[in-house]
Amino acid sequence: MSQPVQAPQLDRTNLTRMEMGALDAVVNVSDGHARQDLSPSQGRIIHGLAELFRRAAGLTYPELDVRAHDAFFHALGQHASPIGSGRILSCYASSVAMEIVARALADTIRSVGLIHPTFDNIPDILRGSRLDLVPLDEPKLLGGDPAELFVPPVECLFITTPNNPTGAVLARRQLADIAAACADRDAVLVLDSSFRGFDRRAQYDHYTVLDRSGCRFVLIEDTGKLWPTLDLKAGFLVYSRNIRLPIAEIYSDIMLNVSPLILVLIESFARDAAAGGLETLHDDIACNRAQLRDALTALPVTFPDRDSVVSVERIRLDADLDGRAVTDRLRDVGVHVLPCGPFHWADQAEGARFLRIALARPRATVNAAASGISSVLTSML
Amino acid sequence: MSQPVQAPQLDRTNLTRMEMGALDAVVNVSDGHARQDLSPSQGRIIHGLAELFRRAAGLTYPELDVRAHDAFFHALGQHASPIGSGRILSCYASSVAMEIVARALADTIRSVGLIHPTFDNIPDILRGSRLDLVPLDEPKLLGGDPAELFVPPVECLFITTPNNPTGAVLARRQLADIAAACADRDAVLVLDSSFRGFDRRAQYDHYTVLDRSGCRFVLIEDTGKLWPTLDLKAGFLVYSRNIRLPIAEIYSDIMLNVSPLILVLIESFARDAAAGGLETLHDDIACNRAQLRDALTALPVTFPDRDSVVSVERIRLDADLDGRAVTDRLRDVGVHVLPCGPFHWADQAEGARFLRIALARPRATVNAAASGISSVLTSML
Repeated sequence: MSQPVQAPQLDRTNLTRMEMGALDAVVNVSDGHARQDLSPSQGRIIHGLAELFRRAAGLTYPELDVRAHDAFFHALGQHASPIGSGRILSCYASSVAMEIVARALADTIRSVGLIHPTFDNIPDILRGSRLDLVPLDEPKLLGGDPAELFVPPVECLFITTPNNPTGAVLARRQLADIAAACADRDAVLVLDSSFRGFDRRAQYDHYTVLDRSGCRFVLIEDTGKLWPTLDLKAGFLVYSRNIRLPIAEIYSDIMLNVSPLILVLIESFARDAAAGGLETLHDDIACNRAQLRDALTALPVTFPDRDSVVSVERIRLDADLDGRAVTDRLRDVGVHVLPCGPFHWADQAEGARFLRIALARPRATVNAAASGISSVLTSML
Repeated sequence: MSQPVQAPQLDRTNLTRMEMGALDAVVNVSDGHARQDLSPSQGRIIHGLAELFRRAAGLTYPELDVRAHDAFFHALGQHASPIGSGRILSCYASSVAMEIVARALADTIRSVGLIHPTFDNIPDILRGSRLDLVPLDEPKLLGGDPAELFVPPVECLFITTPNNPTGAVLARRQLADIAAACADRDAVLVLDSSFRGFDRRAQYDHYTVLDRSGCRFVLIEDTGKLWPTLDLKAGFLVYSRNIRLPIAEIYSDIMLNVSPLILVLIESFARDAAAGGLETLHDDIACNRAQLRDALTALPVTFPDRDSVVSVERIRLDADLDGRAVTDRLRDVGVHVLPCGPFHWADQAEGARFLRIALARPRATVNAAASGISSVLTSML
């Protein structure tokens, strides 16, 4: 094995390709995957992996699938989710769920209103299925009149909640109003709730609200952001009975099943989360966030997302500095962060002054990142 | 958890949706996933899963990725594969690799010549990206004049080798001739070699042949058919330097990385395969195939794929019986097989007389399937 390891050829820049460059970095606070240390109780689950393998091998797939759904959805407050109905499809990842949703939407829908900003693989995947996108500004979406979301007309609303990178959450009343507006227009409401686990305010029972509205809906849920399972994870694609889109058909083009071992692992980690693990995780993220903010307090930066509790944090550069230039300088000293321009997929300039820092990391990694950011910013002022 | 487990709503039939119905069957010889027992040395690898997790957590992702590629491609004779070049992209599964390839092809290509028959998710995924398909009959493809494959004109050839369900293999000389014909026309050659591990005749170094031709090529390789790892697996998407398709870009829309634990597991299983595990696997499949053939010897069936050594076997119903009717009757007695109509994606009637039986199963499962088939056929004659 004497070949040098080269990065994939990069012809076009997106956030994921920047994250790829950080996969062997000394200080990687780039991607939003869960890379913190295992908690003691999580460590005990991993210690028993071989036993979990045997358990998974001894149960049927539908049984394992429903047990994982049951543990995960209940741990995050989603008690009215359609467990056991066949309308929760386990996918390799939330991005695979999104690809399936995009292809299914494209069957009958042309125009999608998409939250702005958000992680750029969402617009890229939707455009990959030739959908036309209309940006919906986050404040207008989360606080405005839902009727305005349909000017210009769109046939589908796609909302990330909590949003990435801002951590902003769609409140229960606003969800109810948006769902009612969708029902009135026979529009499809798609929610990506991948970061839900970090924020209790996003854990009210969305399925109760959505079912009551009668709207056609799709939810994408994700186990991959929460637990440091080395990316053994699943995305769950959930849809309403009245969806009238070929989701199950397209699912079966790409998926037969996820790994039974992954399902058992999700069940175990979800039960641990419900038994106190979620609070431990929230405390750890809060502590990492506080450390980062404290370490940069003397610098001309602000933290625009004061209420955010998700596992990423935005930094606004108040001095006349460009986020991409700072990102480049940080990379030179071995610290990988994301510039926020690409999150503003319809107008990258809006995000030019922001960086995104991942917080689901060991404390030492966050501190090293803070120290690197502090040095680099000081040198650039 | 009192909800009943229901199968997903089935509105359209394809092979994967039939396989889903078999996931909790008593005798499931439906899907081509690896469900045989672990060998003793494989069992020792699984016994050390927790230790593998710690090892994976301690190495960088690019290092783990290249180590897995190195072990896997060399175990299957693919010594000239571009290990370390960045042109081997690890995907959650071969179907995810195929979805990425389909979207990339659709960027500049309209018409694809596709082997006929083959597993129906391939035409479904290609059509999902709005590609026009031209069926290429397997005998003509594997033994005919390559120039004829371009009448009517196509811009891409897609070949499954060894083929599923027939086990037919594209020989080295024919591959060279087809690759040369593609190079002459600037056509893209896509090979799906997911079943390569079962057949030494498919383990000559394809990359040497393809590199020499100068054609634009994509290979899809798969660890998922070989080893009973509870579907902890990866698909590898490999492409030529001159591909001129946005494969890396679309990859990054859907994938950041596969699980580091899965990469370590692939490396371990591939090293075991190279150290004798492949022969053990081949012997087991051969034994299962012989048992199946022997058990049905008194019945009016034949085995059309005499030379096949892959992990699926076709049965031809010589009596006036329809494959789908036999499949239905078998399901009633708890034995799940696949009817072969849908493999003949351009003319299902061609496959009406055939069944497909999966052989990567414990011996007892194959024997139970053979016994069920024998009873049901006897009752239907």
